[in-house]
Amino acid sequence: MKVCGIIAEYDPFHEGHLHQLRRARELTQADYMVCVLGSAFSQRGDAMMFSTQDRARMALANGFDLVLGMPYSFSCAQANRFAVGGVGILHQLGVVTHQSFGCETTDLKALSDTARMLHAPDAVFKHALKQALEDGHSFAKAQGLAMAASLPQVDEALLSAPNFILGVSYLRAHLELGSTITPAVVLRQGDYHSRDTGGFASASAVRAMLQKNPEADLNGICPQKSQQVIRQAVIHPPGALDKALLARLRDMSPETLRQVPEISEGLEDRIKKALREVTSRADLINQVKTRRYPAARISRALTQALIGTQPRESLPSYARLLGFSNRAKPLLAAITQHGFPLVDRPAQERRVDMRLDMKAEELWYLGSGQPMKTAWQQEMIRL
Amino acid sequence: MKVCGIIAEYDPFHEGHLHQLRRARELTQADYMVCVLGSAFSQRGDAMMFSTQDRARMALANGFDLVLGMPYSFSCAQANRFAVGGVGILHQLGVVTHQSFGCETTDLKALSDTARMLHAPDAVFKHALKQALEDGHSFAKAQGLAMAASLPQVDEALLSAPNFILGVSYLRAHLELGSTITPAVVLRQGDYHSRDTGGFASASAVRAMLQKNPEADLNGICPQKSQQVIRQAVIHPPGALDKALLARLRDMSPETLRQVPEISEGLEDRIKKALREVTSRADLINQVKTRRYPAARISRALTQALIGTQPRESLPSYARLLGFSNRAKPLLAAITQHGFPLVDRPAQERRVDMRLDMKAEELWYLGSGQPMKTAWQQEMIRL
Repeated sequence: MKVCGIIAEYDPFHEGHLHQLRRARELTQADYMVCVLGSAFSQRGDAMMFSTQDRARMALANGFDLVLGMPYSFSCAQANRFAVGGVGILHQLGVVTHQSFGCETTDLKALSDTARMLHAPDAVFKHALKQALEDGHSFAKAQGLAMAASLPQVDEALLSAPNFILGVSYLRAHLELGSTITPAVVLRQGDYHSRDTGGFASASAVRAMLQKNPEADLNGICPQKSQQVIRQAVIHPPGALDKALLARLRDMSPETLRQVPEISEGLEDRIKKALREVTSRADLINQVKTRRYPAARISRALTQALIGTQPRESLPSYARLLGFSNRAKPLLAAITQHGFPLVDRPAQERRVDMRLDMKAEELWYLGSGQPMKTAWQQEMIRL
Repeated sequence: MKVCGIIAEYDPFHEGHLHQLRRARELTQADYMVCVLGSAFSQRGDAMMFSTQDRARMALANGFDLVLGMPYSFSCAQANRFAVGGVGILHQLGVVTHQSFGCETTDLKALSDTARMLHAPDAVFKHALKQALEDGHSFAKAQGLAMAASLPQVDEALLSAPNFILGVSYLRAHLELGSTITPAVVLRQGDYHSRDTGGFASASAVRAMLQKNPEADLNGICPQKSQQVIRQAVIHPPGALDKALLARLRDMSPETLRQVPEISEGLEDRIKKALREVTSRADLINQVKTRRYPAARISRALTQALIGTQPRESLPSYARLLGFSNRAKPLLAAITQHGFPLVDRPAQERRVDMRLDMKAEELWYLGSGQPMKTAWQQEMIRL
């Protein structure tokens, strides 16, 4: 049985995603396609526009056989932790043979050389990393500079390409978990961040379109089956929780703020100071970010401050079972044999480690104008 | 020197308020009119539509000589505490000779008989109060029933009239403080709560008009000098802090909620339960209120949960000096001699007891879409 996993956010699921899904199936000849889906708050720290449920619905409708939810504390986290969250679930399912991801290159050697270097850094890398951090670069930037120093055989442009970096994080997670999952790289088509360059529109471009005009024409941008979900969706407007966040930060002492995973080294004081000046989350991020602490890190830190922190596990201890297709029954049976917990009824679950995940969901629903209990009432989707 | 005080909210200052101010000056022949103004959250628990600063500006522009801010923990409180907050400041100023208030009657004997009864309740009253509380009535309603039993000489309709009740609270505060301030009662004209009955429009009617149409014609409803302030005001829209409140309540345990002054006897559990179902503060109040716990009490309790609680002083220890007219200088000099603290620069003040008051102001500004620091940057108004 060949099973291919894809780790994604699908906010919303667009034509580029459909292209990758189809190519992954072709490349791997998989019997089943499994999606590990980011939670209600994105890897970059923002609230998703579409609910976890609606994003799972889009993934299933467009061809996945099984959709699993990644716990919030991994999905709203820096790239390495996000990758460990996704790969950790795929690995622990015990049945996944392949993982597919989009990348700026299909040169698997470049990807795995880089992953091995990060897994067991050499002296050249360590020295260059230390130097770059001392020069005040962000961790991501410093890591890129150190990789360039240590990996002359890899195209330097690739080392700072966002999907190359994420792909490397996945392969590094494979190494760390001793996983035998085979990577299947799909070449990204054009520039996902612009509609004008002939490539697919990015999810952020689609969200911007929908924010401007909820009735915007999505033909050629999102598959019909995504459009059906999008047209009926209750969305979380950007900024919906801004006042809740600012009021929450108002109540947190610098000492409490410093306990947030991505906050350290005086960032707490910068946040407290800027808080008095701003009227929105976006303003606050703009005021606080530096070369060393880029916007995405601040954004995640703010979401973590709003939702709370807990002792962080190094590997997901469960995944949410968001939905599956009828034909996935043998797959589910095989997964069940391996014993990794799939949670299908959060309200009846006694797992303490789910509380933070469900709190993130509750606050997502609050922001979308729906009652918090909606987070607990999700029906599993069956197609 | 005759000095007359009026305790009010002025959200906004309308023609009815101007009428009362003028009648008070006539009745008392006061040299100076002093206003004690409610804070950013009303006695009924809602955020004011207009800032403390703008309401002070309206009071000064319409004829007050001095406007003082009542600390939040007294102004967002049940009628008796609100009255002690206002009268406590007037009394401690040391120069106030009269207090004027509007009432459904000018029968001072009815008012003071009732106040004396509440100050030193007789056996008939005590028994009837206990009975009515046991029957599940709200405290206000039970007190009304007990007064009717104990005070057959007072018109029963008066005993439940809102301004009669507030007037009695003022006179009771006079008794409790041993104050020699003379009451000056102004008869209320018509029904303040309706524009159609020929009386003055109430402040809530004016707010509803402005909410529906910010450009609504206010001639004959608000004095020109109020209109000038209203037209330039940044308002706090109703509901602006709803998500901040609901997220805050989400984080509070029933035990923490029970520490809120107006929450007791299982109300905390009702709030936690309803919280999952609702999408707004108004919904939550509707779901939680009972005959025993009326909407205003729930509303205040929710605001107290959002802003926080502290050990509550029984008498205001300061007032904010919001503004004064040029001609009030001799009045201010006389007040200074008596030594009651008037705070004119909150940002430079080291009083710990002001923190909650200023937090309420900060959250008001957050809701109005302005930075929180605006709360600290208020210039004193001089006319």
